Amino acid sequence: MAARHEEIADELRQAIDRGDYRIGGTLPAETELATRYGVSRGTVRQAVSALAAEGRIGSRQGARRVVLGNRRSQSFAELRSFAQWARAMGQQASGRVLEQFRRPATAEDASRLQIEQGDEVLQVLRVRGLDGELVLLERNVYPEWMASAVESLPADCESVVQGLYDATGVIFAHGEHVIDAVAAGSQDARLLGVRRGSPLLRIRRVTTTHAGRPIEWSDDRYRSGSVSFAVANSIGSNPLIRRAAEE
Amino acid sequence: MAARHEEIADELRQAIDRGDYRIGGTLPAETELATRYGVSRGTVRQAVSALAAEGRIGSRQGARRVVLGNRRSQSFAELRSFAQWARAMGQQASGRVLEQFRRPATAEDASRLQIEQGDEVLQVLRVRGLDGELVLLERNVYPEWMASAVESLPADCESVVQGLYDATGVIFAHGEHVIDAVAAGSQDARLLGVRRGSPLLRIRRVTTTHAGRPIEWSDDRYRSGSVSFAVANSIGSNPLIRRAAEE
Repeated sequence: MAARHEEIADELRQAIDRGDYRIGGTLPAETELATRYGVSRGTVRQAVSALAAEGRIGSRQGARRVVLGNRRSQSFAELRSFAQWARAMGQQASGRVLEQFRRPATAEDASRLQIEQGDEVLQVLRVRGLDGELVLLERNVYPEWMASAVESLPADCESVVQGLYDATGVIFAHGEHVIDAVAAGSQDARLLGVRRGSPLLRIRRVTTTHAGRPIEWSDDRYRSGSVSFAVANSIGSNPLIRRAAEE
Repeated sequence: MAARHEEIADELRQAIDRGDYRIGGTLPAETELATRYGVSRGTVRQAVSALAAEGRIGSRQGARRVVLGNRRSQSFAELRSFAQWARAMGQQASGRVLEQFRRPATAEDASRLQIEQGDEVLQVLRVRGLDGELVLLERNVYPEWMASAVESLPADCESVVQGLYDATGVIFAHGEHVIDAVAAGSQDARLLGVRRGSPLLRIRRVTTTHAGRPIEWSDDRYRSGSVSFAVANSIGSNPLIRRAAEE
């Protein structure tokens, strides 16, 4: 028989998946849920932790939890977070910051982050692994207002999305991804342990808040053979766009 | 001042984009449109041809035209059809069939096309160019019921989607895409004029009818630096899925 907190987790999970709680909205407060289900706040907290681990909800925002995703395909949080994704597959993600420094925004940073050229940005280079094997090189650039929160993350932080959400309450709400294939440069090759010129899957992304304010832009490079990205489309709805290369 | 057929094209375009005509449904017959706009059938035909060239509608199905896409991002037809896409960018697509033969379905063919292993399939290898430069190697496998229509296409057919639609009336309605990066094999390298081992962007796709019947599966490989694929997502709707590599 399932424990009471598992039953409650399941009811909440189904309610989120049905859309009873809007994505981006909040769950009722723990005290309210405790009253509704006739259990202690500790039991509610156990149920709610399970949903947070799945990426369906975020950590606390005041007394409430923000709804972040549902079962429809992969949640945005799970796509966005390498650590959540690995966990959902039953694998262990690792992460290590190799470089982290502030510098003036280039024209490219300014255009992607909607800031002025010369404004301070934080650049971070991370390497990520799956079950101990290096698979991903992440180059992120954050605007100044996110910089301190990023710098406060531990260097081996497993889930950057979760860490930043906990520190700032900022929700990664929208993403624009551009996917292509590139040859590993010398830094890529050295850090991922592949030969120079070997194929990498590159995902460039700008992530914004609900209001459209850019939170970061990134250049992720995956070792060939480690991951793929899947997209479904139809003549009624096509989220996938082919573009001629800019460079 | 715009010619009358341009005005009519524009009204129909707006009606499709507003959703007055359902995607997958049909436009009124030419005679009906001629009466409505008080013009000749020739004028209607000019207007309708413009929309067909944009990928908003297909060619005739009986007296009517099927609505294939609207302005929301890139149309499915434009994504699906290399030729339409190139035209929308003002570039010239070329295509050439290098190999085309019938063979028994492998286990992979059977699973992707929902047929039995050993059933006849048609395999086609095409090379595609943009403004004269080779950029894409397409490997397609079609089930037996599509084979004759494919074989009837001219070897330098510019738009395969359009050609098959004209011949069979079959609408490419849904697609499932898996995107990754691979190293050019020796055939890839020879046919695309790149070095062996150099990065290619690979899109594997199964396309089906409205009813979900598989029409083809394909393995497209783009030269690195020629195209990218863009996807937007949000916490409310995420069409993009990261997957661990199967192979």
